[in-house]
Amino acid sequence: MAKKFEEIKIIYLEKPQLKDPILIEGLPGIGNVGKLAVEHLIEEMKAKKFAELYSTDFPPQVIIGSNGVVRMVKNEFFYYKGEKDLILLTGDYQALSPHGQYLLAEKILDIAENFGVKMIFTLGGYGLGVEVEHPRVTGAATDIEIVEELKKHGIVFKEDEGGGIVGASGLLLGLGKMRGMRGACLMGETSGYIVDPNSAREVASVLSKILGLKISLSSLDKKAEELRRITEKIKSIERSMIEKEKSEREDLRYIG
Amino acid sequence: MAKKFEEIKIIYLEKPQLKDPILIEGLPGIGNVGKLAVEHLIEEMKAKKFAELYSTDFPPQVIIGSNGVVRMVKNEFFYYKGEKDLILLTGDYQALSPHGQYLLAEKILDIAENFGVKMIFTLGGYGLGVEVEHPRVTGAATDIEIVEELKKHGIVFKEDEGGGIVGASGLLLGLGKMRGMRGACLMGETSGYIVDPNSAREVASVLSKILGLKISLSSLDKKAEELRRITEKIKSIERSMIEKEKSEREDLRYIG
Amino acid sequence: MAKKFEEIKIIYLEKPQLKDPILIEGLPGIGNVGKLAVEHLIEEMKAKKFAELYSTDFPPQVIIGSNGVVRMVKNEFFYYKGEKDLILLTGDYQALSPHGQYLLAEKILDIAENFGVKMIFTLGGYGLGVEVEHPRVTGAATDIEIVEELKKHGIVFKEDEGGGIVGASGLLLGLGKMRGMRGACLMGETSGYIVDPNSAREVASVLSKILGLKISLSSLDKKAEELRRITEKIKSIERSMIEKEKSEREDLRYIG
Amino acid sequence: MAKKFEEIKIIYLEKPQLKDPILIEGLPGIGNVGKLAVEHLIEEMKAKKFAELYSTDFPPQVIIGSNGVVRMVKNEFFYYKGEKDLILLTGDYQALSPHGQYLLAEKILDIAENFGVKMIFTLGGYGLGVEVEHPRVTGAATDIEIVEELKKHGIVFKEDEGGGIVGASGLLLGLGKMRGMRGACLMGETSGYIVDPNSAREVASVLSKILGLKISLSSLDKKAEELRRITEKIKSIERSMIEKEKSEREDLRYIG
Repeated sequence: MAKKFEEIKIIYLEKPQLKDPILIEGLPGIGNVGKLAVEHLIEEMKAKKFAELYSTDFPPQVIIGSNGVVRMVKNEFFYYKGEKDLILLTGDYQALSPHGQYLLAEKILDIAENFGVKMIFTLGGYGLGVEVEHPRVTGAATDIEIVEELKKHGIVFKEDEGGGIVGASGLLLGLGKMRGMRGACLMGETSGYIVDPNSAREVASVLSKILGLKISLSSLDKKAEELRRITEKIKSIERSMIEKEKSEREDLRYIG
Repeated sequence: MAKKFEEIKIIYLEKPQLKDPILIEGLPGIGNVGKLAVEHLIEEMKAKKFAELYSTDFPPQVIIGSNGVVRMVKNEFFYYKGEKDLILLTGDYQALSPHGQYLLAEKILDIAENFGVKMIFTLGGYGLGVEVEHPRVTGAATDIEIVEELKKHGIVFKEDEGGGIVGASGLLLGLGKMRGMRGACLMGETSGYIVDPNSAREVASVLSKILGLKISLSSLDKKAEELRRITEKIKSIERSMIEKEKSEREDLRYIG
Repeated sequence: MAKKFEEIKIIYLEKPQLKDPILIEGLPGIGNVGKLAVEHLIEEMKAKKFAELYSTDFPPQVIIGSNGVVRMVKNEFFYYKGEKDLILLTGDYQALSPHGQYLLAEKILDIAENFGVKMIFTLGGYGLGVEVEHPRVTGAATDIEIVEELKKHGIVFKEDEGGGIVGASGLLLGLGKMRGMRGACLMGETSGYIVDPNSAREVASVLSKILGLKISLSSLDKKAEELRRITEKIKSIERSMIEKEKSEREDLRYIG
Repeated sequence: MAKKFEEIKIIYLEKPQLKDPILIEGLPGIGNVGKLAVEHLIEEMKAKKFAELYSTDFPPQVIIGSNGVVRMVKNEFFYYKGEKDLILLTGDYQALSPHGQYLLAEKILDIAENFGVKMIFTLGGYGLGVEVEHPRVTGAATDIEIVEELKKHGIVFKEDEGGGIVGASGLLLGLGKMRGMRGACLMGETSGYIVDPNSAREVASVLSKILGLKISLSSLDKKAEELRRITEKIKSIERSMIEKEKSEREDLRYIG
């Protein structure tokens, strides 16, 4: 018999018993900072996948794995049981439409509520439009007590700027707050032009300190180092091209 | 238990008893003239917030306050009890989609009807594309009697132009008229390029005269003065840059 | 009590008794040819309005009349009782979204069916991208018998081109055909850059011959004449500007 | 009585009895490779149309045939009964919106399931951005066994690239896999700039070998040959224009 595809479909692989778990979200966004940070946490803490989320508001496509096998685009939920239980959320895409963004955030909060989540951390990037060598982590939260708490961990609050947080990282906090959940968004400064493991490293580092998680950051360090090498190479090529062009232009002057 | 987020959600803080209240709308739009004017009225008349409106057709984001605390984007209803009772509507955004614009306007009219609203003023800007030193207030209304009445207050009706009013300021009148409500749109002339407190001042001024409200306009005057200073400074910088460039170009001629 | 605004709302002013009426559609489109032609027929035949159609997929705005009074954007149905009964459809806009286009066409066909419509003429423009002095009327139809019939009236069928008819003029025929209705689309050749009463004149002329309607075309002739005068003036200004520029460039050569 | 137009409407001309039919999809896409390949199979195998699919998420238009007769845009299902039964799917358009893409793919899978489909081939183009003289056929599949099987037929799997398959060719595999169906996508390399019968030839050729179908490829060969002639002519014109321009520029140097 034919099965209908709902707007949003959840497939549970397991229904873990968790104690007041903290939800940590890192979906694709500015510099992919949030996604990189959560993926790092999942890997380091050997978190276990327990649910997949599919939506008709994701891009209508499959992704081809390196082995040639296709899979639908999706979001994934992982859990970790420890001193503090965690639910970690990452995925291929965010919803495409504004309406879909709201629907998806509410669905994620439904799931979180069912597992007893009362606290949410959403992770993302904070685009500066210029290269950032030493990215700081900026923040926003659902209440002033959390703001004060995070300041103690060195999180920067840009008090005179205001501004907004677009997408899941914003809506999970805003809609969660309307359900009585608390939470904060941690945003690593980044240029906004490239995927930024260096910024993700800072976000993962400060979050692990806040939560008392003992994780190594060496794999993000390695990715950041690799990125630095590539960037340096590109810059050096650019410099030599500019030099060459400049000298050619000077040559041309003699012709004129 | 999980709570679903409807397309539009109203949260009442209070259900005031109002006598034939007049609805005054000023949502973001051209030059933010309407929003500035209504915010000024709310402040001057110490109107009290009684309801918040959330919609999945608003941009999917939160706004970060200067204290680092986030909140969902929303529209807000205020009331004022006096010789004439008022409901004042302002907010962060209008609906993003055409369909959402219609839905939202109908929902606002539902609320207005429930409180006994029979008369609506919608406030906005009228973009001229050029700087306006002495903005006039132009109008449109649901019937010819109101047009004639407003002319007596100096409102300009551009009879030979026709044209339209896009968004909430238009739909509240048009859809309200279909429910038997009466109303008018007051539009302050503005360049359309900047937020314009000077134009908002004129709109607030004429509306307060029409409604017999005694309000000070000094805070809008101050904002307008500040804007004038900034604009003058920018122009002076532009002038000196043009002068400099011109003299440099003249210098270059001697080289050739 | 609050009244909800449906996606599409029909307000009947009258329910006329019509005998096998022919539906003639002319909504805004290329060169506004269809709209101009139907408006002309309505005026010349003194057709009477009997219904208004409102949709949340029209642009979210009101239109300001020359007297300063606003009205919702809408489509309008007129009828004419004569040797052949007619239903004439025109309006301010077509639906904005593809889905809305389908919904609206089906709703219009529902109404047409209720009045016993079995034959439909949809009117529009055929954009050529270049100025057309003597526009021909091109056609398309629901069946080959109508094609042959229309050829006798001088309608051109561009047999080697194929192509499509986008919007209401296309969907009313295509979806009508699926309900067993017959019909044709008459498209006046036009540049596609301007509102074109000259092309509308040809469409109205040939349709009135097909239907045996006796109407004067003088008001469209007058509009077309006016347009020709304006176009000629613009061209003459352009020519003198080009001349001036050319002579200035020639002057400059002597300087070099 | 008025009939409503559903979001998706299927009209069956016939309900054939098929034994474990294989679904082969070729809708418009990159280089129209998939559509050309399936149309070729339909023609060569004299497959019979048994169903038409209409959707309000297709472009809102009709298509005018060369005889002047209009028809709605649609997708079409054909069947072939032989050693292996086939269902072949092609059409004018894919759905316009992401949501519509999901709905349509699910509807197609519903139909396929009802006829007992367990295996799907989706055909498409693989855009390289440069001209391809000898296009290879690249692949992706729902499981590793099919990948290995297809490699034996010379299908290329770009293991280090990953990437995605957008639209029906991707979703039918991805959503089909979630229903327990198996399948593969065969993509002919193509520039992506033109309709490419040469690439479609390679896809049709390899698929017919996989399925053991005996078909002639001569009509696609002829179309490809024609395309080559046209392309060669365009290039030769371009070359002579470049030559002419170059020589004119050289002439100008003598003037200076």
